[in-house]
Amino acid sequence: MDQSNKQDHPTNGADVLVDTLLANEVDVCFANPGTSEMHFVAALDRKPRMRCVLGLFEGVVSGAADGYARMADKPACTLLHTGPGMANALANMHNARRANTPMVNIVGDHASYHLHFDAPLTSDIESLARPMSKWVGRVRNVNEVAQRAAEAIHESRSLGGGVTTLILPADAAWSSTSATPVQARSNETLALDGDALRRSVAALQAGADGSTLILLSGRALREDGLALAQSIAERTGAHLLAQQSNARTQRGKGRVAIERIPYSVDLAVKLLAPYKRVVLVNAKAPVAFFAYPGKPGSMLAPDCEVIQLSPLGTDAMDSLRHLADAVGAGARPQSLQARPGQQPSDQLDWSAATPINPQTFAQAMAALIPDNAIVCDETVSSGRDFFRYTMQAAPHDYLQITGGAIGNGIPLATGAAVACPDRKVVLMQADGSAMYTVQGLWTQAREQLDVLNIILSNRTYAILRGEFKSVGAGTPGENACRMLDLDNPSINWVQMANASGMEAVRVSNIAEFGAAMRSALQRKGPFLIEAVL
Amino acid sequence: MDQSNKQDHPTNGADVLVDTLLANEVDVCFANPGTSEMHFVAALDRKPRMRCVLGLFEGVVSGAADGYARMADKPACTLLHTGPGMANALANMHNARRANTPMVNIVGDHASYHLHFDAPLTSDIESLARPMSKWVGRVRNVNEVAQRAAEAIHESRSLGGGVTTLILPADAAWSSTSATPVQARSNETLALDGDALRRSVAALQAGADGSTLILLSGRALREDGLALAQSIAERTGAHLLAQQSNARTQRGKGRVAIERIPYSVDLAVKLLAPYKRVVLVNAKAPVAFFAYPGKPGSMLAPDCEVIQLSPLGTDAMDSLRHLADAVGAGARPQSLQARPGQQPSDQLDWSAATPINPQTFAQAMAALIPDNAIVCDETVSSGRDFFRYTMQAAPHDYLQITGGAIGNGIPLATGAAVACPDRKVVLMQADGSAMYTVQGLWTQAREQLDVLNIILSNRTYAILRGEFKSVGAGTPGENACRMLDLDNPSINWVQMANASGMEAVRVSNIAEFGAAMRSALQRKGPFLIEAVL
Repeated sequence: MDQSNKQDHPTNGADVLVDTLLANEVDVCFANPGTSEMHFVAALDRKPRMRCVLGLFEGVVSGAADGYARMADKPACTLLHTGPGMANALANMHNARRANTPMVNIVGDHASYHLHFDAPLTSDIESLARPMSKWVGRVRNVNEVAQRAAEAIHESRSLGGGVTTLILPADAAWSSTSATPVQARSNETLALDGDALRRSVAALQAGADGSTLILLSGRALREDGLALAQSIAERTGAHLLAQQSNARTQRGKGRVAIERIPYSVDLAVKLLAPYKRVVLVNAKAPVAFFAYPGKPGSMLAPDCEVIQLSPLGTDAMDSLRHLADAVGAGARPQSLQARPGQQPSDQLDWSAATPINPQTFAQAMAALIPDNAIVCDETVSSGRDFFRYTMQAAPHDYLQITGGAIGNGIPLATGAAVACPDRKVVLMQADGSAMYTVQGLWTQAREQLDVLNIILSNRTYAILRGEFKSVGAGTPGENACRMLDLDNPSINWVQMANASGMEAVRVSNIAEFGAAMRSALQRKGPFLIEAVL
Repeated sequence: MDQSNKQDHPTNGADVLVDTLLANEVDVCFANPGTSEMHFVAALDRKPRMRCVLGLFEGVVSGAADGYARMADKPACTLLHTGPGMANALANMHNARRANTPMVNIVGDHASYHLHFDAPLTSDIESLARPMSKWVGRVRNVNEVAQRAAEAIHESRSLGGGVTTLILPADAAWSSTSATPVQARSNETLALDGDALRRSVAALQAGADGSTLILLSGRALREDGLALAQSIAERTGAHLLAQQSNARTQRGKGRVAIERIPYSVDLAVKLLAPYKRVVLVNAKAPVAFFAYPGKPGSMLAPDCEVIQLSPLGTDAMDSLRHLADAVGAGARPQSLQARPGQQPSDQLDWSAATPINPQTFAQAMAALIPDNAIVCDETVSSGRDFFRYTMQAAPHDYLQITGGAIGNGIPLATGAAVACPDRKVVLMQADGSAMYTVQGLWTQAREQLDVLNIILSNRTYAILRGEFKSVGAGTPGENACRMLDLDNPSINWVQMANASGMEAVRVSNIAEFGAAMRSALQRKGPFLIEAVL
């Protein structure tokens, strides 16, 4: 192969950009490049330390960057091609935004002097990027590439983290420069609000009867944060709950068994009705995912006092430590049972007579999740029993879809596996959502990632059948059913995996599912189980 | 099935919206709904005249609406779920925008009173929609649903057509109303500019030596427009060319054989160098698709006079008729050969010894395109010879990707087949681009559309290998090749089609390709040929 690309090459903007990323420990690039990014791609040849992972659709790229950062605790970059390429990445950028995931998008654009021609691929990238980005910047010339990149990295990591988008015109990438890489500024953190701390302490003191809730999300859902929160709850009589959707929760045997706020408005309102005060730690006050005629938007009791102890951008661990000190709680709790409640039975008949349904699937998973696994969940309706049945499963990290933009699961698992090559990633994936970013299976095969994909095939948008009723639309008729069901034809997930270079098997009862799981967990590398519900 | 949905139902906003669409002959809805669109879906049960076509990803939805409208000459509507759902549709909305395709997007949003909660799926839909829409509107309450829908329909059809986006909050859909459907205003058309006509006539009079070019796009590329333009060219000595990318061109035996401006800047500049004047009819002055170091952005000679005879929004046929009258040209040309040039040979060795490559593929297609077919082209690099070899193929409509946002082909063919159930649709599709909207195969299978999908499998982003050189990036090394090649693993397109419920066959030489094509053309319904290059 001609290596001229690497030798005697004057440094250009793309080189300085990649060097700036590497100097700031951004060393994984999920990419789907086009013509305007060819100099960035060429620079990658000269910078082998940057790991490049190709996605055959940009939703895979952004979703993988999300999964990567949730596990690596640092941003990856993406490489996207002009406005339409970034548009394809937006849905999973939206999920990343809701997860406060650090992510640095590099979006190539036409050379700056070419924009006025309004060539076919020209579009208003800023307008497209802003709704899903906490920071958007455009490089004006080659000499500011490094500075702007360092800003994008800084903003992605600071104040709780988030998605940033740097627009790189092709001429800024290809022009020569004597500029050097720039170190991003240190992360900024918001200080703990003393008044919020005092109000939180008062709320805990008033809640010895179980009428105060500590609602956790973000960093507070790691093992140490949960332990500290549980210790505070034990000391004060407060209850603990986790937000409905969270970027990453450390759970399973030996960790605090915390419940989440349910998706159903009725169930959530009922669960939250007893609480007169809620202390938020990296969480938002709980609201209905959708509005329904005649149902409330806020799921808290109408007179519930809301205290924002540790909003996004503050250090949740620091906030919890201050709170623990103030109420005299130790670092370790006595019990790991966060909230009084009945544990569901884990009795499961592992025979071929047992169908796969949300409950038996959850019971099987409770037994089968391997130690230290990363479990990614885009089960939508089929996974509704997973969380409560797996409190005592082997310890695992649990990653959820956070923004409701379906098509998150396959990419999320892909990125998590890139971040943690020594851990098994288990993806629980609804079939309808899987189709959105099905191209991610190919990336898993290309990179030989250690992902076990479980497709829960119910051949319908089952959640929408429930929502149809919930919004008061009655019973779906013929035209509506054609919008809600995925049968006729059914998707064959074994062939879909095989088409993408991945082995797969179909199972249709719990005996087959158990056998397939045990076999798949013995091997390393990507695999797919189609579980027919 | 419970029919209560249809009976004794008070009219709501969703009903009035669907009735307004139907009253304006918008009777096809490409959809991927979510919770906020459930009342629209329920209304569809009560309005069986609205044909609903489900796409398992929103890029399929918008691309199909584009293909439908290009063939039906009227808009379809789409049904999309909040900001992220629309975001998934944006890339093909971009292509539709560049094709000036009439399209009415209905984007469901949270109930208006729920937006302030910033629930997980909330986003700035307007900011996302504007770059790809000529008109964006939000319904403020149920009583303005019909009026706003009529505006969206009017704007989509008027002044040359375009993409409009109507944001429909869930409460406007579900609230009862006594409002009635609204008829959209008649289409508006810009008047012919008399000065531009005079300058065009002068340019033609000065160009008897072949130094004046008439550049056509849009409506001028239908059979009658081409005939009139050819007659003018014969009368005056002007030359004719088509824009590089066009929404729809009527071509083949018995129609004017017109060439297009090439994609390559060098070839385009060379082709256009002789022209001192260019008269634009629904076309834009030709510019480079991308900027390249040291190459021009405008592809016309520097001193070329540009005359915009018939910009978007004017009636191209009316402009051409005025021009014909002014120069004394008749309605029918003498010859169908638009521009002096060598016709390529159609000699093809149909044996198994002949590999499939861009030239042999084009030669084979010239012989095989069925009469009155709709040919959709997203071949990217593999189709570069198609156009010149098929000037004398059976008459067909030819639809191209217009905005450079790849992933257009499968949806475009899907929508064209919905519009024209009695015509064979032949899709020529590059493999890399096919992956972007591969979910469209399922819609073809679900609807049993008469589409023959030809996947040109070269297992690389071949165009990017060319662009890598063109931008002066040298020769791709190891990291770059991993971004440009789609092998390891190769995608198995037969399995991919089968997974989506479609029969398929793989061919790897011209004998096999010819046999597969002849067999596939005998059957009705979706089929896929994987042509291995």
